[in-house]
Amino acid sequence: MRTIKLTIEYDGTLYHGWQVQPGLVTIQGVVQDCLARILGHPVYVQGAGRTDAGVHAIGQTAHFRCESKHSSAVIMRALNALLPDDIVIRQAEDVHPSFHAQFDAKEKEYRYYLLCQPERSAFFRRYALFVPTPLDLDQMRNALARIVGTHDFFSFSTAGDERENTVRTITSADIGQEGHLVAITVRGEGFLHKMVRRIVGTLLEVGRGRMVADQITQILQARDKRLAGPSAPPHGLFLMSVRY
Amino acid sequence: MRTIKLTIEYDGTLYHGWQVQPGLVTIQGVVQDCLARILGHPVYVQGAGRTDAGVHAIGQTAHFRCESKHSSAVIMRALNALLPDDIVIRQAEDVHPSFHAQFDAKEKEYRYYLLCQPERSAFFRRYALFVPTPLDLDQMRNALARIVGTHDFFSFSTAGDERENTVRTITSADIGQEGHLVAITVRGEGFLHKMVRRIVGTLLEVGRGRMVADQITQILQARDKRLAGPSAPPHGLFLMSVRY
Repeated sequence: MRTIKLTIEYDGTLYHGWQVQPGLVTIQGVVQDCLARILGHPVYVQGAGRTDAGVHAIGQTAHFRCESKHSSAVIMRALNALLPDDIVIRQAEDVHPSFHAQFDAKEKEYRYYLLCQPERSAFFRRYALFVPTPLDLDQMRNALARIVGTHDFFSFSTAGDERENTVRTITSADIGQEGHLVAITVRGEGFLHKMVRRIVGTLLEVGRGRMVADQITQILQARDKRLAGPSAPPHGLFLMSVRY
Repeated sequence: MRTIKLTIEYDGTLYHGWQVQPGLVTIQGVVQDCLARILGHPVYVQGAGRTDAGVHAIGQTAHFRCESKHSSAVIMRALNALLPDDIVIRQAEDVHPSFHAQFDAKEKEYRYYLLCQPERSAFFRRYALFVPTPLDLDQMRNALARIVGTHDFFSFSTAGDERENTVRTITSADIGQEGHLVAITVRGEGFLHKMVRRIVGTLLEVGRGRMVADQITQILQARDKRLAGPSAPPHGLFLMSVRY
């Protein structure tokens, strides 16, 4: 039995997220269907993590197990020939048979793009949140610095149960700018559902002057989901890479 | 009577080009329909030039005449509120009443993007031609330099009549590279229908070693449309700007 690791790029616009759901088109579902056609049997493709509907990936990773005699390069070429043009396998490689895309992941990098200009853009509409009002990036950087480290992110979660473990470690985070595009990059060992989008939504409140950077620490400590900003829309978010 | 000049950005993917055609959705048609709703009467929007189906624009320009009492800024905001998200007015300004977007244009800049990497991309699929085979960019630059200047571009045209004036002046041209993206930029006083795409198609033949740069001069001189390369597909082409 072989284990093959995939690195997958996708434009999430038309998909109901990564995870298979009955009656809905998902990235995992489409990749599994194409792989099954190549291998001649059903196959489960385990992703490093789920991405929500509309979220994109430059470097989602996944693994599957098979007994195929084809090289990983041949399987990758066959997959890319079958996959729709908004999903691409960027790499396929044989890894240790026990490799697990989710459990072995050491760090994930997410990036959220903001398009900061007075008029919307015909080209970034699907890949960046349009923000026509000025943002105070310095204050946003101050706020972002406060989430780096190990914290209880309950306030930034969608957790339904207070006893759920919502402690996570953010290893680094920064805000870059190139022209009108602002990129908020967050790296961490693990993330709660919608956590990055709620962090971005909260940073936007800070950038617009509706919150101050200091409040981030208070929001973390309060363990109150009503205090953090709203969840930023999915289309600005990219899963950039997963490190093992 | 006022004349208002528009600078328009559009993702051409879903449109049958700029020009109004019965029964088809076109950029000109959509802009005219939205403007008519704002002004309360039909209006003709004259573009600097037509773009073909699937071709994009960062800076198409156009003009229309009206007697509205609204400022150009108000008209622009109203237009952007009505237009679909793949068409954006980037600028609207009052110009001299005799201004004509087509006849007064001094120079246009077109850019064609190639994505040069082994695997296709989920994000550039609509905005760059995917070229998985290596290209000799130096030879392509040599070839491109030969079209700069005033030449009879009959061989690179779709002209049906040999007596048509197919002499045009290319003022400058270059090939840039950033990461896996190669940008072929061509500036000229005027272009024949599909001329940029046939130039790019011919450059690709040179880049792949199927033609040598010297042949460009021979193709120009031969006035034979069969000698130039095929027309490159529309989705890599952008009308970048029009200078007046």
